[in-house]
Amino acid sequence: MPKLVLVRHGQSEWNEKNLFTGWVDVKLSAKGEQEAARAGELLKENNVNPDILFTSKLTRAIQTANIALEKADRLWIPVVRSWRLNERHYGALQGKDKAATLEQYGEEQFTTWRRSFDIPPPVIEDDSPFSQSNDPRYGDVDPSVLPKTESLALVIDRLLPYWQDSISSELLQGKTVMITAHGNSLRALVKHLEHISDADIAKLNIPTGIPLVFDLDENLKPTKPSYYLDPEAAAAGAAAVAAQGKK
Amino acid sequence: MPKLVLVRHGQSEWNEKNLFTGWVDVKLSAKGEQEAARAGELLKENNVNPDILFTSKLTRAIQTANIALEKADRLWIPVVRSWRLNERHYGALQGKDKAATLEQYGEEQFTTWRRSFDIPPPVIEDDSPFSQSNDPRYGDVDPSVLPKTESLALVIDRLLPYWQDSISSELLQGKTVMITAHGNSLRALVKHLEHISDADIAKLNIPTGIPLVFDLDENLKPTKPSYYLDPEAAAAGAAAVAAQGKK
Repeated sequence: MPKLVLVRHGQSEWNEKNLFTGWVDVKLSAKGEQEAARAGELLKENNVNPDILFTSKLTRAIQTANIALEKADRLWIPVVRSWRLNERHYGALQGKDKAATLEQYGEEQFTTWRRSFDIPPPVIEDDSPFSQSNDPRYGDVDPSVLPKTESLALVIDRLLPYWQDSISSELLQGKTVMITAHGNSLRALVKHLEHISDADIAKLNIPTGIPLVFDLDENLKPTKPSYYLDPEAAAAGAAAVAAQGKK
Repeated sequence: MPKLVLVRHGQSEWNEKNLFTGWVDVKLSAKGEQEAARAGELLKENNVNPDILFTSKLTRAIQTANIALEKADRLWIPVVRSWRLNERHYGALQGKDKAATLEQYGEEQFTTWRRSFDIPPPVIEDDSPFSQSNDPRYGDVDPSVLPKTESLALVIDRLLPYWQDSISSELLQGKTVMITAHGNSLRALVKHLEHISDADIAKLNIPTGIPLVFDLDENLKPTKPSYYLDPEAAAAGAAAVAAQGKK
């Protein structure tokens, strides 16, 4: 039966510095590399063997997959990358310090930008050093399709077609599919799979580096609740994500 | 114009131990990881920017690509893997010590197995611990097609169709294509591209970890002789490969 394994990338150089990252392409920190290795060990210990990997186009998610699959002795599986699995585009907030943004705009505006379902931050200017308007990695995508800011609702809009076509077709063949991606692109997917409401999704925090498994039936409906391969570490990790950006 | 970049994987755990490896899936040694990082630095320093990566199905080639592309800030390019880029299958020699094999069978037989164009070693038995007959990474390939021993001539036979269809079609779009593979699969490809005779190919030794570049025209003919991105290190490396297995 099909199995879906979601892995949120570990700590990046900018998570560590508490900056809004979005589509800015930063690497994993040393801690993030350790988290990725742990994810691979959990796959191996639990005999969860991905047949194919999907990643975003961002280095931190790709590094996470490479490190985890090397630990799991599955580096040889096919790989597909898409911008549709990228982190939420944080618009003009990209590159800004989270604590300073909280101080400058206040708790309400800050929480709206971070957690409202459908209110995106202001768009990023093309000449911003944190814009991706000339990034060659998106050279094969119609520029009018690429976001300059996104709410979670907009992430769902651009992610679901890719889920429905590319990822689902692999699952429908009975494969174990691994996705390494980001806090918000994975929240978008979990919202869809578990029918979480627009209001409740704000409370879902996915911890980094701990594989989240969905056992699916032949119609890609979950046959039981999704589960983390290390539930105790997952609970601690989710609490840490919830506290992020607080002073 | 199209550009082809070949990278032979760096030292593996078994190169270090002087064992015949072939299709046995061993990892890079620490030295091999350093060689891969150097390959990535050479790509970056020389502004050689791969648009797509092809690798074999073997971990040491995939690790080489992952490390090199991370150094070159190109981890996000599309990746395709195929068994047709694998190292030559060394048949019953897989897992055997090279120096002991030389001693047991003598210089002539040893050199024939290592360097003759079309005489393969004896086939490996399916129940050998070094056989890949039940390896899930080849689960999508017709078992009757998978080799149990190979000469260089047989490597060319199974590699050329993949070159002609999959790799060439990317080059014909004007892309820079990177291949990370193995001593013998890369020799097979260079033989084809540079019209090297069956006799002369025995003398070609490709050093590890140094990108070898072919500038091609629109018909995929080289516009000038191929070149290494670090010619001095390449000459030293080729001499080291030629001396391999000697006592």
